[in-house]
Amino acid sequence: MPYRAPVSEYQFLFDHVIGLHQVTATERFAEATPDMTAAILTEAGRMCEEVLYPLQRAGDLHPARLENGVVRTPPGFAEGYRAIATGGWVSISAQPDHGGMGLPMTLTTAVNEMMSSACLSLQLAPLMTQGQIEALEHHASDELKALYLPRLVSGEWAGTMNLTEPQAGSDVGALRTRAEDNGDGSYAITGQKIYISWGDNDFTENVCHLVLARLPDGVPGTKGISLFLVPKLIPDENGNPGARNSLNVVSLEHKMGLHGSPTAVMQYDGATGWLVGEAHQGMRAMFTMMNNARLGVGGQGIGVAEGAFQHALAYAQDRKQGHTPDKDNPDTIIGHANVRRMLAGMKSEIFAARAIALACAQAIDMETATGAKHWAARAALLTPIAKVGGTETGINVANTGVQLHGGMGYIEETGAAQYLRDVRVTAIYEGTNGIQAMDLVGRKLMDGGEAAFALIDEMQAAAEAARGGLPDLAESVWQATESLREATDWMLAQDDMTQRFAGAIPYLRGFARILGAHFHLMAAQAEGGDGARTRLARFFITRLLPEHAGHLAHATAGAADLYALTPSDFAA
Amino acid sequence: MPYRAPVSEYQFLFDHVIGLHQVTATERFAEATPDMTAAILTEAGRMCEEVLYPLQRAGDLHPARLENGVVRTPPGFAEGYRAIATGGWVSISAQPDHGGMGLPMTLTTAVNEMMSSACLSLQLAPLMTQGQIEALEHHASDELKALYLPRLVSGEWAGTMNLTEPQAGSDVGALRTRAEDNGDGSYAITGQKIYISWGDNDFTENVCHLVLARLPDGVPGTKGISLFLVPKLIPDENGNPGARNSLNVVSLEHKMGLHGSPTAVMQYDGATGWLVGEAHQGMRAMFTMMNNARLGVGGQGIGVAEGAFQHALAYAQDRKQGHTPDKDNPDTIIGHANVRRMLAGMKSEIFAARAIALACAQAIDMETATGAKHWAARAALLTPIAKVGGTETGINVANTGVQLHGGMGYIEETGAAQYLRDVRVTAIYEGTNGIQAMDLVGRKLMDGGEAAFALIDEMQAAAEAARGGLPDLAESVWQATESLREATDWMLAQDDMTQRFAGAIPYLRGFARILGAHFHLMAAQAEGGDGARTRLARFFITRLLPEHAGHLAHATAGAADLYALTPSDFAA
Repeated sequence: MPYRAPVSEYQFLFDHVIGLHQVTATERFAEATPDMTAAILTEAGRMCEEVLYPLQRAGDLHPARLENGVVRTPPGFAEGYRAIATGGWVSISAQPDHGGMGLPMTLTTAVNEMMSSACLSLQLAPLMTQGQIEALEHHASDELKALYLPRLVSGEWAGTMNLTEPQAGSDVGALRTRAEDNGDGSYAITGQKIYISWGDNDFTENVCHLVLARLPDGVPGTKGISLFLVPKLIPDENGNPGARNSLNVVSLEHKMGLHGSPTAVMQYDGATGWLVGEAHQGMRAMFTMMNNARLGVGGQGIGVAEGAFQHALAYAQDRKQGHTPDKDNPDTIIGHANVRRMLAGMKSEIFAARAIALACAQAIDMETATGAKHWAARAALLTPIAKVGGTETGINVANTGVQLHGGMGYIEETGAAQYLRDVRVTAIYEGTNGIQAMDLVGRKLMDGGEAAFALIDEMQAAAEAARGGLPDLAESVWQATESLREATDWMLAQDDMTQRFAGAIPYLRGFARILGAHFHLMAAQAEGGDGARTRLARFFITRLLPEHAGHLAHATAGAADLYALTPSDFAA
Repeated sequence: MPYRAPVSEYQFLFDHVIGLHQVTATERFAEATPDMTAAILTEAGRMCEEVLYPLQRAGDLHPARLENGVVRTPPGFAEGYRAIATGGWVSISAQPDHGGMGLPMTLTTAVNEMMSSACLSLQLAPLMTQGQIEALEHHASDELKALYLPRLVSGEWAGTMNLTEPQAGSDVGALRTRAEDNGDGSYAITGQKIYISWGDNDFTENVCHLVLARLPDGVPGTKGISLFLVPKLIPDENGNPGARNSLNVVSLEHKMGLHGSPTAVMQYDGATGWLVGEAHQGMRAMFTMMNNARLGVGGQGIGVAEGAFQHALAYAQDRKQGHTPDKDNPDTIIGHANVRRMLAGMKSEIFAARAIALACAQAIDMETATGAKHWAARAALLTPIAKVGGTETGINVANTGVQLHGGMGYIEETGAAQYLRDVRVTAIYEGTNGIQAMDLVGRKLMDGGEAAFALIDEMQAAAEAARGGLPDLAESVWQATESLREATDWMLAQDDMTQRFAGAIPYLRGFARILGAHFHLMAAQAEGGDGARTRLARFFITRLLPEHAGHLAHATAGAADLYALTPSDFAA
C-alpha cells in the first residue's frame, strides 16, 4: 500500500480556501505561477512517493547509530537525502541571492508535509536546515551568509539547532554553555547540548550547528544569551570543509520512535564558532528559526496523519470481516459504520489541521511580501495553533489508524504503530505543546486580542456569507465563533497569566476546532454546497465541532481549583 | 521512583463509593470481612511493589522469544510468576470447591489492577488463567473440573484462550479450526490460531488452551462453534502432565509494546482436546470467559494509568524548570498551571475509570451472590463501559505522562513511553473498543433500556441527595444525566442498528464521563463536601464533564452522513 501525494488537495486549498492568489499577486512571489506551483507539487510528490516512502520502515528497523564517534544513518538514507538535495527540496523558500528559489512558505509547507508523510525521520534533516537558513538570512553577517547559505540551500551542508541542556529545557534561559572571544572574530564554545536532532550524519560534507551560549558579560536568563554558528569542519580559505572542530557526538538517544533520525548529545570543548546577530540577542535570532520550525513541526504532524490515514484506508478497503450494511462494500470493513466514522474523523481532522497550517504559512508569505503588521500578527497568532493542531492531529489520526487495524495495528510489521511512535515526539520538540498554548494565551494576546478578533471577525463574515447555501452549518460555525470571542474576552480579562495558563491547552484546542470548522465551511461553499467536501464538512461540523464547548468551558475555569489541589492530594 | 500500591484508594472506594458492604452482607461473600479485605490488598500490594514492579522494564528490554519451538520468558519473569502463584494471586475469586478462595470479583479487580500497574506483560498470564477458570467452573464437566481447576487455581498450570484466526477476528463466526470426535470422549483439533496471549511459557508445568472449533455437524457462523480444552501436555492417569500434545507455537509477534508477554501463532494438528459445555454452544461458554476478561482488560488500562501517573507525579515533584506561581513549589514543575492541570486530569480520570470498573465487579458479585436479574443486567451494561473507559483512560493518562516529561518522555530509558506502548493493545484485544461500544448500544439496550435507565435514575437520585452540600456540582451532574437519558432514548428509537453503531463510541464515551462525574460527586459527598476528594471532583465536574455534550451530539448524529461519504470521497 504505497503513499500517494495529495497534490490535488493542496491545489484545492491554495485555490479555494486560503487564497494563494493573494500571495502570488505580490511582486515578491510573482514567480510562483499556477504552473510553477503545480510543477513543484507534482515533482516533490513523485520524489516522496518513489524515493522517500520506501525508506520509512528501513529507518525504523535500522536506527541511526554511533560507531567510534561517527553517526551511521539507516540504509538508503544517504540516497534519499541526495534525492532531496538534488531536487532542490531542502529549501525552496530560501532567498534567491544565495541560491534559493524564493518560493512562498505556503509551498514549502506542502512540500515539507509530503516528505513527512513519506519518511518523517529523514525529513527532519532538511527541516532543521531550513530553520538555520532562515536564521542566517535574517541575522548573520554578509560574510557568514556568503560562506554558508549557498551550501546549506544546496543541501551540501546540513544545519542543526542547539538549545537544550539537561537543566535548561523549556526554560532556555537556564543554559550554561559559554562562549569566549578568541580575539580573531571567532569565539570558543564550551558546553553540552542534548536532544540535537540530526546532530551529525554521514551524507553531507559538513554539519553546521547553531548554538545558544552565554558570553562572559551575558546576564543570567534569556537576555544574556548569544547565538553562534559552529561548523563540524571549519571552512578553509576557499570555503571548503577544513579542520575538524572541537565538538563531538557523545551519544545517541534510544527513542520511542523516529529511529532513523539520530538524536544526539553534543559536546563542545572550546569549539570555534561565529556570532550570529548581535551579542546577547541570541533569543531573537533563535525565535526566527523556531517560528519557522514550529510551523514545520505542525506540518510533520499533518504529514504523518496523511500517511497513517492512507495506510488505514487501504486496509479498510481490503480487509474482509463480517457483513456490512453498505451495498457497495458488503464484506470489507469500510462498510461498517464505526470504521467509516473513524475514517471520516481522520480525513476531516487532516483537512482542518492542514488548512490551518497553510493559512499560517500564507500569513508568513504576506508578511514577507508586504511587511504589513497585520499579516505578521496573523502569522504569530496561527503559529502555535498550527503547531499544536498539527501535532495533535498527527497523534490522534495515527492512534485511530492503529485502532482501525485491530490486532494487526499492534504488530510492528503492519506499519500502523510506527506512525504513532514516530509522530509522538512532535508534540514535545520545538517547544512542547504546553509551551505553545501558553504562548497563544500570553504573548499572542498581548495586542489586546486584535489579531484574534480580526480572525474571528473574518470567520463570522464567512459564516454569514455561507448562510444562503448551507444555513445549518453556517449557523453552527457562527455560534462557535461567538463562543470563541467570549472565551477570548475571558482570557484578556485575566491580568494574572496563571489564570490564562490554567486553560491554555483547552483554549487552543477549542480555537483549532472552530478554525477547522470555518475552513471546512469555506471548502463546502467553494463547491457550491454539494459534493465530497460538503459531505466531509457536514461530518466535521456536526460531529467534531461540538467538542469546542467542552474545551472552552475547561479553558475558562481559572486556576484556583488547580492550586487548591496540593501535591499531597495527588499522593496514592 | 518506585510504584506504590494505592491500597487506601481501593478501601475508600469500597467503603464510600461502590458500597462493598452490600456484597459482604451476602452469605456467599461473608468471609470477605474488612480485615480480610485489608489484608488481601496490603499483601498483594506489597508483592506488586517489591516483586513485580522491578520486572516491568526487564520485560520490555528482553522480549519473550521462541527458541527451537520453546518460549523463553524475560529474566525474572519465572520468579515473578512464582510469587503470584504462591501468594494465591492467580485467582482469589475461584470457587472454594476446587481450591479457590471464593472472594469477590471486586477484590480480584483491585488485585489485578495493582499487578497491571507493576508489570502489565506478566499480569496478563494470570488474567488469562482467571478467564479459563471461570469458563470451566460454569461449563465444564465435573471430571474436567476436578482434573484442571485445582492446578489452574494454584498457578501450577496456566490457561489461554484461542479465538482468533487470520480471517476471523471480530467476526469469530468465520473461524475454520475443526474438531473431530475421536470416539473415546476426546476430540482431534486442527487449525491455526493467532494473537494467543501467553500461548506458552517456561514457568508452569502445563499450559491449557481453550480453543474454539467447529464440529463436522456445526453450522456456519457462531452457532456452529464448540469449545475445547486442549492441554499442551496431556494429563496422565494421576493427573500429572504426560504426553506432548500435537500443538505448537509457530511464531511470536513483534509488537509495539507488551514485549514481555509472548503473543503466539498456535498450530493444532489433530491435537487432543475435550469438549467444554455442550456441542455448538461454544460461544456461550466463551462469553463467560470474555466478560470476565473484558472487565480485566479495563482494569489493565486503569492499572497502567496508575503506574504512569505515579511515574509522572514523581517527575513533576523532582524536575526543576522555570519559576512557578506556587509558593510551596517555586522551582519544580508541579508548580506550573499546565503541569498541575495535566496531573489533576490524570488523577481524576483514574478515579472515574476505577470506580466504574469496581462498580461493574460489584454487580458481578451481587449477581453471583443473589442471582438477581437486575444485578446481572447492571454487570452486563457496565462491562463494555468498564473495558473502554479503562483502556482509553490508560492510553490517555500514559500519553499525558509522556507529555509531562517533555523531551525525557520520548527517551525509552525514562519509562514513560513504555506505559503508552504497553497499554495501547488493551483498546484492541478482548474485543476491540469499537466492538464493545456496539455491544453497549446493541445487545445491552435490548432490554428496552431498563438497565440503563435504572442506572440513570440512581445517578439522578444521588445528585439530588448531593444538592444540599454541593449544589453547583450536583446540578451539573444532574443535567448531564438528563442528557444521557435523552441520548439513550434516541438510541432506543433507532430500529436500524447501523444508526446506533454510527454513534456507539461517542455514546459510550459520554456515558463514561457522566458516570465518572457521578462517582466523583459521591466521593465528595462522602467526605462532607470538603477535602481532597471534593477538590478533585470539582476539577473533573467543572473541566472534564462538559465534554459529554460533544460526545452525545456526535452519538446521536445518525448514520446517513457516514454512508453519504463514499470510499472515493476518502481518496487523496
